[in-house]
Amino acid sequence: MRLFLLLVAFPALVSSFVGMLPSRHKQSQGRQSQLRMMAKLPKVAVMVNGLPGAMGKEVAAACLRRGLEVCSVGLTGPQVDEECVDVDDGEGGKPQTIRLVKGPVTGAGDEECDARLQGLVAGYRESGTRLIAVDYTHPTAVNPNGMLYARHKMDFVMGTTGGDRDKLLKDVEEAGIYAVIAPNMAKQIVALQAGLETMAGTFPGAFEGYNLRVVESHQSSKADTSGTAKALIASFGTLVGKPYKVEDVIAMIRDREGQLEFGVPEAGLGGHAFHTYQLLSPDGSVEFQFRHNVVGRRIYAEGTVDALTYLAQQHGPDKKVFNMVDVLKAGAMK
Amino acid sequence: MRLFLLLVAFPALVSSFVGMLPSRHKQSQGRQSQLRMMAKLPKVAVMVNGLPGAMGKEVAAACLRRGLEVCSVGLTGPQVDEECVDVDDGEGGKPQTIRLVKGPVTGAGDEECDARLQGLVAGYRESGTRLIAVDYTHPTAVNPNGMLYARHKMDFVMGTTGGDRDKLLKDVEEAGIYAVIAPNMAKQIVALQAGLETMAGTFPGAFEGYNLRVVESHQSSKADTSGTAKALIASFGTLVGKPYKVEDVIAMIRDREGQLEFGVPEAGLGGHAFHTYQLLSPDGSVEFQFRHNVVGRRIYAEGTVDALTYLAQQHGPDKKVFNMVDVLKAGAMK
Repeated sequence: MRLFLLLVAFPALVSSFVGMLPSRHKQSQGRQSQLRMMAKLPKVAVMVNGLPGAMGKEVAAACLRRGLEVCSVGLTGPQVDEECVDVDDGEGGKPQTIRLVKGPVTGAGDEECDARLQGLVAGYRESGTRLIAVDYTHPTAVNPNGMLYARHKMDFVMGTTGGDRDKLLKDVEEAGIYAVIAPNMAKQIVALQAGLETMAGTFPGAFEGYNLRVVESHQSSKADTSGTAKALIASFGTLVGKPYKVEDVIAMIRDREGQLEFGVPEAGLGGHAFHTYQLLSPDGSVEFQFRHNVVGRRIYAEGTVDALTYLAQQHGPDKKVFNMVDVLKAGAMK
Repeated sequence: MRLFLLLVAFPALVSSFVGMLPSRHKQSQGRQSQLRMMAKLPKVAVMVNGLPGAMGKEVAAACLRRGLEVCSVGLTGPQVDEECVDVDDGEGGKPQTIRLVKGPVTGAGDEECDARLQGLVAGYRESGTRLIAVDYTHPTAVNPNGMLYARHKMDFVMGTTGGDRDKLLKDVEEAGIYAVIAPNMAKQIVALQAGLETMAGTFPGAFEGYNLRVVESHQSSKADTSGTAKALIASFGTLVGKPYKVEDVIAMIRDREGQLEFGVPEAGLGGHAFHTYQLLSPDGSVEFQFRHNVVGRRIYAEGTVDALTYLAQQHGPDKKVFNMVDVLKAGAMK
């Protein structure tokens, strides 16, 4: 009953914000400012690995929108039949064909793939262009690919989750290459998560006596609980002054009807991440709410390209492996 | 049209959370923890100044709920006719009568009031009780009362806004007394405000390209824009990377019908503070929302008593004047 009441509340809310969509004018202001930032960039080419996967396509589109060169070769998985895939900027721009090369299945590498990469890297180096890989492949490919990048001294942005993360880090550090490694590339969500963590650390117990309720919705294929939700629930626990068990405070929506009622647009049913956190005072007179609602994959692709442009500007001898908080903090130095 | 669409969305939302009201069990857990904290307190009596005003009554009730002694005398304004007022804990507890004494109208003081206070302070000092004033009076009384507390070396919590704040601070510092001076005693809202300010300072531009919309509702008698809204809009401006003019992004609701549609409960029309902040990505695929909705005055009274119990534990020779961020940070030291 409680959940039902909550659900009926949302559709009108989301439709209400449709009227608030920004004008094209404001969008282009944002892009111009991004282009200004790009002017300071060294020449960069991006190797998109994980095509023809949906995230690979989104990343290629985001690169093209920002005027970055997309390398005409990309790594793919062993089960992929296509030899080529077309990518475009998602806004009506001219498509570009990417030739797909099978990536290594084990850390020992793959003769053909290694030879191909060696040639590519040498070619780009000669032309004064920095080749950076973006990896949205498969958890099983995280370590073989990490070792491949290490062998060829290729800097990379790793958006693929899973694999042996300690080994990945060790391989990268031993090779002395630059990388951004982050399980969540949606930088605004990472900012919120880090912001609430800092707030909780600074003001623990400020919400003593308050009660937390969380509702989240993801596409029905996602079985586990959102990692972001878990992190935020930990921060809210510190603010309330008592640690929560995630399952005690969360309601997860995975059915079509519930999702539509929660305000997920029809087009987003196949890929979305909606979160609402509520802190209610003991007497019910005060309510705080935090929401982050994402439809589709664009926020992750944009964050990935932010990570990539950040990485392209790193040349220091000390710190070479970064995460999204590093990328976010760089905003303070612009 | 946009505003209308937003408005129709809220009533169902608020009613949905009514089902989430916490149990009495959880409330009493919070109180027990507060009482444990109280065990460490020195003996304290609270002089509630500003009765029979609504905030004075709320503060007296919050003090009684927490087992603090409320002084049987309180200062009031020159236009008040009542000689006495009854206060209680707001939860069915026994009422207590407070005798009202006219406070000073000018900084020169008032013979009768000063004599009365001198006797009170001496009496409490003899009995080993720390007498602390809480001030919710009138902007015109801020400085005369500040000077009165200074003359009698009375520590105080100043919740009254207005007056000459620099002079207030100077008088308190010269007298060497302890005080918490804060324009907003709702400590959870102060925590959110400080948290977002820190987040903005750490990650400026993280929401580049996003668009901000703010809707706030207060009782129709409030003419000006919410100070909290102004502060949060400044932080969001830093996050977006462009300063906002408050009037460009805010919609203010001051009419009964609009307030009910926004989700303000009927009983809260005469006193509430509802705020919704929305950050929307350029393509509309990502939405962040922050809300803080307050009905009535209890959150301010509870925060005031938190400030008071914090103040009662301060004895250091150095810092003697505090604000709500100091009070909040003390949570980390519990």
